[in-house]
Amino acid sequence: MSVSRRKVLGAAGIGAAGVAAISVGALALSDDSAEAAPSVTQPVAFHGEHQAGIVTPAPDRLHFASFDVITKNRADLVDMLKAWTKAARRMTAGQDAGPLGAVAGPGAAPPDDTGEAIGLPAAGLTLTIGFGATLFRTAEGTDRFGLADKKPAGLADLPHFPRDDIDAAISGGDICVQACSYDPQVAVHAIRNLVRIGFGVVTVRWSQLGYGRTSSTSTAQATPRNMLGFKDGTRNMKAEDGPKVLKEQLWVQPGDGPDWMTGGSYLVTRKIRNHIEIWDRTSLDEQEQIIGRHKGTGAPIGEAKEFDEPKLGEKKIADDAHIRLAHPSTHGGAHLLRRGYNFVDGSDGLGRLNAGLFFMAYQRDAHKQFVPIQRMLAQKDPLNEYIKHTSSGLFAIPAGVRDDNDYWGSALFG
Amino acid sequence: MSVSRRKVLGAAGIGAAGVAAISVGALALSDDSAEAAPSVTQPVAFHGEHQAGIVTPAPDRLHFASFDVITKNRADLVDMLKAWTKAARRMTAGQDAGPLGAVAGPGAAPPDDTGEAIGLPAAGLTLTIGFGATLFRTAEGTDRFGLADKKPAGLADLPHFPRDDIDAAISGGDICVQACSYDPQVAVHAIRNLVRIGFGVVTVRWSQLGYGRTSSTSTAQATPRNMLGFKDGTRNMKAEDGPKVLKEQLWVQPGDGPDWMTGGSYLVTRKIRNHIEIWDRTSLDEQEQIIGRHKGTGAPIGEAKEFDEPKLGEKKIADDAHIRLAHPSTHGGAHLLRRGYNFVDGSDGLGRLNAGLFFMAYQRDAHKQFVPIQRMLAQKDPLNEYIKHTSSGLFAIPAGVRDDNDYWGSALFG
Ligand code: HEM
Ligand code: HEM
Repeated sequence: MSVSRRKVLGAAGIGAAGVAAISVGALALSDDSAEAAPSVTQPVAFHGEHQAGIVTPAPDRLHFASFDVITKNRADLVDMLKAWTKAARRMTAGQDAGPLGAVAGPGAAPPDDTGEAIGLPAAGLTLTIGFGATLFRTAEGTDRFGLADKKPAGLADLPHFPRDDIDAAISGGDICVQACSYDPQVAVHAIRNLVRIGFGVVTVRWSQLGYGRTSSTSTAQATPRNMLGFKDGTRNMKAEDGPKVLKEQLWVQPGDGPDWMTGGSYLVTRKIRNHIEIWDRTSLDEQEQIIGRHKGTGAPIGEAKEFDEPKLGEKKIADDAHIRLAHPSTHGGAHLLRRGYNFVDGSDGLGRLNAGLFFMAYQRDAHKQFVPIQRMLAQKDPLNEYIKHTSSGLFAIPAGVRDDNDYWGSALFG
Repeated sequence: MSVSRRKVLGAAGIGAAGVAAISVGALALSDDSAEAAPSVTQPVAFHGEHQAGIVTPAPDRLHFASFDVITKNRADLVDMLKAWTKAARRMTAGQDAGPLGAVAGPGAAPPDDTGEAIGLPAAGLTLTIGFGATLFRTAEGTDRFGLADKKPAGLADLPHFPRDDIDAAISGGDICVQACSYDPQVAVHAIRNLVRIGFGVVTVRWSQLGYGRTSSTSTAQATPRNMLGFKDGTRNMKAEDGPKVLKEQLWVQPGDGPDWMTGGSYLVTRKIRNHIEIWDRTSLDEQEQIIGRHKGTGAPIGEAKEFDEPKLGEKKIADDAHIRLAHPSTHGGAHLLRRGYNFVDGSDGLGRLNAGLFFMAYQRDAHKQFVPIQRMLAQKDPLNEYIKHTSSGLFAIPAGVRDDNDYWGSALFG
């Protein structure tokens, strides 16, 4: 017996959606850059017009790390970015971080790979780099690396939102790297080797593990569920939305800001704690009203199937339902490519699991997309009783690395 | 290209072990109770002479939770254990936690499942319960539930070991539940639903997520690697060691202590932080000397293949090598069934990843097995420069749940 017997019944009374795909199952899909479909073991192309890890299908494990730059020397930073790029190119291909590998020796020098991924395949590993506002000018105003002139307007600080409870120690950062893979050992190995290579130049400011991606980025992926038990990603921006939508909503276009960001995107990260014990004591009906969708099928309230259009003109969907407040029509068409992951960070010392959503969203301009949506949610979303935003990040994600001679940040530093 | 190109070279110069099994790969194995081989999607039998999750093959995701009992009422506690057992029986079979399921409604009562595992298969889920010393008598000496007489000698507190840096807040607990699965969403869902059912009776004292099990519990599993990059589990006690060894070393025998523990085992948990940044700067040679094995092949120093016997009589393996200090011959034959998991809990605020090994070991008598081994390691193991024990737990693991009428703890409370 290899399929689930968990019941999937729509609240509308319709037996539904026998989605039996285990989250680790192989997924056949195509991405925006028409690359070959990755499987759970295969590599994802590192070079390209855009960085991988954005519209490429999200595998179900995440290790996200934010770094502080501790050197004052621009050349050292650039050298590290070059070394990182080489290692990232190798690791995303399923190779050791360095050419000698984990077990070259014996000798006095440490191996150039830490070894815990020996024998493991690429497992869909993507590594995606981003630059935070403090890289350009510190909070105190210092232009450490002569980059202040190149800071894009899009990196202006996010405003404070009502109810924000942001912990600075797990927010922001000069550089971020998102590692996604089907195997957590592979994602963790990648970040750890970047940390090793970056010794003396960067330190880890904060890092976050996640699993079971909460938003599908491709129509070929079954929509996964978040910690509220709801399908998350039904109306996400997807690779299949096509180049027109992605141009308009996802990729920074010429003229949007400094040239070095063209072809890039902006990433917003928000660690959102879910008060799951409280949520778990509310009725199904209340939960469904809050989201505006049925829990079983994922269909909009009043509809039968997950991908049916929500009838926002009708009263069935509450005025303050999450999907109404967040809907593009409420924000002049603004949309997000959400790519968040569930997290559980142990418990909180008060008898509760410390769990929730590590929200990540890519977009062309966070101040025109994430900000208005989140402002409305922070004011009106009844979900606020069950969640708390505890960390925040905004990163400029440059365009892709073109070839073997190119490196992460070349357009910015070059 | 679906296999790894990561180099696997023995330091002895021998091209080796093309282990290309992704840690999420299907594993064909048989366990001690001769059950059908579980795959990554299939269920593991819940009923049996012993609890599942001990000699059954360890899948690669863990959610471990320790609970404090907050009720003073014995009947409430027993009722909860009965309700937990019912839910565990269902969830390990790939069903919702309760008969109504996640999407029965609408109605005023919350659903009897939280929903995030809808559509997911059992994914090898095992749930294993254990009882801590404080359940029998609190640290202050109170016998809350009339159990003090039944406390086995085997639950006597572990001694303090040299270099221990134990945080009481993430140690001990009245009850523990180990959830293992091939899918973290399934393991987390199971613990979360037990938390929900236990509301008012227990609270979460601490919980730990882990991945990529560090020790194989079956010869059919490829030996996984820990955060030091070494294979971990090569000489682990395994299901295939056969009933004689398991009787002698793993399962509590009649006469060992109170009857209710017969057929059970003792679990030691130790959260062991690895100072990976320091480790990553030591040479391969030094790393191999410390462990006593080659990093690539996993072979004992001087040997060619992983499962070759270590020649402890010869000088090649250092006097204080980890595998010599921990070897059964050093401890009158005492062995452990290790079943630990790697963890990464973000970073530590000092620029370092907070990562390491969540060590778990099952055994017939922790005071005769874990304690002498750990005492020697704590005194002599050069690994101590790179590790720190930060949490500790000892739990009495009762025998298996026999049938539909039996429940977790029946022998203790019945
Ligand atoms: C823990 C916090 C959150 C949870 C549990 C949550 C959950 C959900 C769910 C279940 C859906 C419906 C399925 C779908 O279309 O994906 C949804 C939709 C959506 N959410 Fe959230 N969400 C959270 C926070 C946020 C935040 C912070 C934002 C952005 C500021 C956001 C933006 C959206 C958008 C844009 C949609 C799609 C709306 C549509 O076009 O129908 N969500 N969310
Ligand atoms: C972070 C801490 C630790 C690490 C990284 C580690 C790593 C290893 C490695 C790489 C091996 C060799 C492969 C194998 O046979 O499994 C090993 C063996 C072993 N370890 Fe550990 N270990 C750690 C802590 C402990 C502790 C706390 C104990 C028990 C007190 C322990 C008991 C053993 C035993 C019994 C063996 C098998 C020895 C033999 O029969 O050859 N280890 N360990």
